[in-house]
Order: sequence, then structure tokens, then C-alpha cells
Amino acid sequence: MTDEMVRDPTLMSCPLPLDDYPTVVLAHGGGGTFSRMLTEQVFLPAFGGEELAELHDGAVIEVEGGRLAVSTDTFVIHPLFFPGGDIASLAVHGTVNDLAMCGARPLSLAVGWILEEGFPMADLWRLAVSMGQAARAADVRIITGDTKVVDRGKGDGVFINTTGIGFVPEGVDISPRRAHPGDAVLVSGPIGTHGIAIMSVREGLEFETALETDSAALWAPVQSLLTSLGHELHVLRDPTRGGVASALNEIAASAGVGVLLDETAIPVEQEVKAACEILGLDPLYVANEGKLVAVVPEHRADQALAALQSNPLCRRAARIGTVVSDHPGRVFMRSRVGGIRIVEMLSGEQLPRIC
Amino acid sequence: MTDEMVRDPTLMSCPLPLDDYPTVVLAHGGGGTFSRMLTEQVFLPAFGGEELAELHDGAVIEVEGGRLAVSTDTFVIHPLFFPGGDIASLAVHGTVNDLAMCGARPLSLAVGWILEEGFPMADLWRLAVSMGQAARAADVRIITGDTKVVDRGKGDGVFINTTGIGFVPEGVDISPRRAHPGDAVLVSGPIGTHGIAIMSVREGLEFETALETDSAALWAPVQSLLTSLGHELHVLRDPTRGGVASALNEIAASAGVGVLLDETAIPVEQEVKAACEILGLDPLYVANEGKLVAVVPEHRADQALAALQSNPLCRRAARIGTVVSDHPGRVFMRSRVGGIRIVEMLSGEQLPRIC
Repeated sequence: MTDEMVRDPTLMSCPLPLDDYPTVVLAHGGGGTFSRMLTEQVFLPAFGGEELAELHDGAVIEVEGGRLAVSTDTFVIHPLFFPGGDIASLAVHGTVNDLAMCGARPLSLAVGWILEEGFPMADLWRLAVSMGQAARAADVRIITGDTKVVDRGKGDGVFINTTGIGFVPEGVDISPRRAHPGDAVLVSGPIGTHGIAIMSVREGLEFETALETDSAALWAPVQSLLTSLGHELHVLRDPTRGGVASALNEIAASAGVGVLLDETAIPVEQEVKAACEILGLDPLYVANEGKLVAVVPEHRADQALAALQSNPLCRRAARIGTVVSDHPGRVFMRSRVGGIRIVEMLSGEQLPRIC
Repeated sequence: MTDEMVRDPTLMSCPLPLDDYPTVVLAHGGGGTFSRMLTEQVFLPAFGGEELAELHDGAVIEVEGGRLAVSTDTFVIHPLFFPGGDIASLAVHGTVNDLAMCGARPLSLAVGWILEEGFPMADLWRLAVSMGQAARAADVRIITGDTKVVDRGKGDGVFINTTGIGFVPEGVDISPRRAHPGDAVLVSGPIGTHGIAIMSVREGLEFETALETDSAALWAPVQSLLTSLGHELHVLRDPTRGGVASALNEIAASAGVGVLLDETAIPVEQEVKAACEILGLDPLYVANEGKLVAVVPEHRADQALAALQSNPLCRRAARIGTVVSDHPGRVFMRSRVGGIRIVEMLSGEQLPRIC
């Protein structure tokens, strides 16, 4: 193993001999030598760090006094590998983003795996390497973990829980309750891309250009917003399950305000529009993983938009609506043809297992 | 709903009308109105607090500066309900105990549920109430959560991940590496009870007295040990998967010491012994959830034992062995008849899905 490989596990093959251990077996979750083997020869080298090296059931971290954000998220996405990502990178992004939506700089991740007996070890290695890469890219440390194995037919390959801890800088006060009438509603880029990328794989749709998930860590754009707006950044939300429509409905309900959207202003990729028409979906309800919704005071809207657009992930950020005092708790949209319709919260389920 | 019911959700029936919503459906994991219904009408009232009331994807907690312990654990136990406990109380105890084994006072829990489509809502209510009760009893707050639903046949009723955050008091220095030759090895009570309680349900074994899990939160006895020994409390470990044998092997490997056990000193319930004989198991390898192993200096051993025994959970605590300098990394046991045998780490898997 060269130094370069230690730094970049994507360059090396799995240290666990895959010919001898081709699949996950129940013993890998038993707490004995097989569990240790998985930790030492798959997870530790794939994560590329010494962080987990103590192999204890808990990790101890030093923190400064203040506010910590904590978020937990379980990922059951199907399929496990999809264009532009996989369940493991998604698990890192999803949790890091939930922290960022609290205005918190992500510090540490705890990771719980549920593996199904018979899952290919080579795929587990790919996922572990992907998780390590995503964590390094997001500048977050994987500090502790747990692995369980369920018998064949009692799981679905891999489920992952990630719990993140982040530090909330002083002065930050982000809460859905802070949406005020008159505030501007921004979105960081085209919506619905993650959900449609997954659905197009499941449904076998093909497009001229490959449609990839937008899954990404959003702390960098949040940091730009905080630097630019400070305390005046009112609300952040990542519109994952339930899409932008459900996120805005939650904000409207929490703050007791209305939200009026402008359909023509909402950025949606051409392929996403096309797929939504074929599948009978509304992009407003489709899940995202690398997008955020921000609510900011009207007089800071342009500045906030510029702060977002300065980040490569958010070049197509746009202002999509306004917070209003009418009809508290409800979201409306002015359509292309000028009519106004209610945008309800997602009811039922459009896209199961999208994250 | 009376005030008493709010304080004690075990007295009330599920606020979600079970006739209308008899089972979990995919939409309960969709992030829309059904997800909200589950949070507001099952989890929040069952947890009996306002803690989660903000319904945000993350929670923010105030902490003093210092050391935080973080632990994550996923529970896939089968069956979900068993004598003396269920997967939800076990999930609280397991994570609270991992924190306690770092010497940390448990503060907060984040909870991730994976539900299988079709799971009875009445059972989910029972589990949620049980989780709330266990958390209150352990004086730990459930601060955030996440719920996903997988399609029928892709899960097994309920899996739960719990991640805990605890505060490590100043001066505490507990680590498997601190086991020194000469130290005494203590156990907090009879071993193997949890694993055998589960196995006896699975195998349909019957005993004269009901065998119940020992699942319990161990912060109180750990606090007694810390008050009594302070910095001289060297090692703590909860011997869950892989049992006491695997926990001691890990300590021996970490510290580069040997451990010599005295078989006659190891407390085991009569029913557990009997069941182990029937099932061909060794209690040393059977999982526990309400027991701990402590390593303390020889001259503090009696004091540590008294501190443990002062706690109702640990009346039958015992000294079971000694740390030695011979054969570093290995565990040995002097048997009833005087011979000495090696106690290996668990290899393979005796008892799948025991936690």
C-alpha cells in the first residue's frame, strides 16, 4: 500500500481478499472476528483515515461550548448505485445538508450499516470508498460506526443511517418560524433532478444527455450565505422527500405565513421536465439532494442570490417567490398563464425509496 | 387527553385512529402529510415531550465545552417483542450504555426508524411508547429522528438506529488500553441472560421461571463507579454481541495484556446455564445488554465491587478475573476442575440478530 493509496482509497483494491470472502455473511454482524475483519479490512481503509482506529463502540470528540446541531437520516434508496452517486455518498450529503440547513458547520458523522446476507463484498467496498470520498470532500470526519447483518430476504442489500454533529456559529438564527411577510424565497438551482435521475433508472427512461443526481454537500453555499447575510438569513431548508412543495408548506405552517411562487421563475432542467411529463409527476414534489431553499429579507435578496451563484453548485440559483401575509400556512403558485393555484403538501407517495 | 396521560403515554391509546390507519404504508416514509401524521400522532405523543415539537430535520442543543461521547447502534433484533423488553427499549439501552462505557453521562438521542410496509400501526405505537419510557427512565432526551418505509418483503417489520451524545466529565479516562497487569476484572451481574431470553423465545424453550432480558440502562452504576474510583476506573465495556469473551479479547488486544478468568467466579443464572447446555452455547459468548465489564486497579477492586453492588441492577456483581502480563492479547480461563483453556474471540456467528 503506497502513501498515495492511503490518501486515496479509490486507487486501491479491497484489502479483504474478495475471492475468500465474496459476500456478506451473518457473522459479519456478530461482533466477533468477522465483524472485526469488516471494520479493519473494509471500512477503515476505505474511509482512508485513522479516525476510527480505536474501534471502540463510541468516539469522544472535543468541542467548544456553544450550540451543536444534531441530525439523523436513514437511507433506503433503490437502486443502490445510480447515475452520479450511490447510497453511501447520498448518506453523507443528506446528513451534512441537514446540518447545514441549521446553519451548522458539519464536524462529525456516525454511520450505521444494515447489510443483507449475500450482498457482494466488492459492492460494499465500492460503497465504503464512496462514503470516505464524500466525507473528505465535505470536510467531515467519520468518527464511529456500527454494522448489522440481516438474513437474506429480510433487507434489501444495504440500508445506511448517518447521524451528523455540527457546530452552529454564534449569531446564526435559522428557523422555519422566521419566514416574514415580504421575504424573498430563493432556490439554489434547478429542482427535481435527483428524483428524476433515480426514476429514470428504475423506469428505464433514456435521454439525449445523461441525467445525473444533483446529490452534493451544501455547506459551502450556506457558508457564503451566512458570510453575506449573517443573522438576516431567516430560513434554510433542503427540499428532499416531498420536494420544494412540501418544504415550503412546512415553512408556511411553522411561520404562519403564506408563500406565493412564480412558476416561470422556477428552474427545472429540460430532461427533468420531459421525464415528469412522461411519468405524470410535478417537479415541485420531486426529491432533491443537492439543492436548498432560502428565505431572506427582500432588501437582501439580490445579495443572497449573488452569494449563492458565487458557488459552482448554485450557478443557476433563482428567486422563485415571496412570503405573504395572506392565507397563512398555505403555498400558492402563479402559473405560466397567470392563474393562481394552491400547492398542497405532498399527500400519499409519488416516489418511494428516493433517499 | 389528561395531564397524567401526557406525562405517561402508556396510559393512553394511540392518537392516530388505528381503524383508519391499521398498518404502515409507503407514504408514511414519503416526507409529506403521511410522514407528518406519523410524527405528530404517533412519535411525539408516545415520546411524551415537546422535545421534537419543532419537527425540523435537525435539532440544536446547547453544550458546555469539553469532551462529548458519540455512539451509534443499529438494532435488527428478532423477534421485535421479547420477555422483558422490545427492540425500542433495547435501542435506548444499547446506545445509552455505549455512552456510559465511555464514562459519558447520556444527554441526547437521535432515532432513525426503518419500517416495513404493512407493519401493524398498533405495534408501532407500542414500540414508540416503550422507547419514550426507556428514554425517560434513562434521563436522556430524544431530540431528533427520521422514518423511512421500505416495501413489503424488503425489511423485517422494524429496524431502529439510535445515536447518542453524552458528556464526559473532566478527569474521566476510560479506555481499553488502560488495562494494566495486576488489575481486577469485574462483571456487574450474571451473564448471557439477554441472549438466552431471545433464543428461548425463538426456540420455544420453556423454563420454570420466566427468563427475561437483562436489558437496562447502565449509567447509574457507572456513575457509582466514577464517584468511587474517579480516574482509577481504567476500562468499561458492555459485553453485547460476542459476549464477555469477545469484550475481554478486545481489551486484551488493545492494551497488549493477558486476561485470566476464574470460571467458578463467573455469575450465570441457572436457567441460562440449562438453556446453554440444550442449545450447545457457552454463556461467555452470549450477548448481554444490561451488564458491564470493568477493569480496576487491584487495590480498588473491593471498593469498585461495593459501588456496583449498591445499585439494584448490579447486586450480583462479581470479580471474575485478573489482568496479567503473560500472553498479551489473549484471554484464558481456569476451569472448575483446575485446567486452563484459551478463551478465543467469537468466530463465526452463534446468535444472529440478538440486538
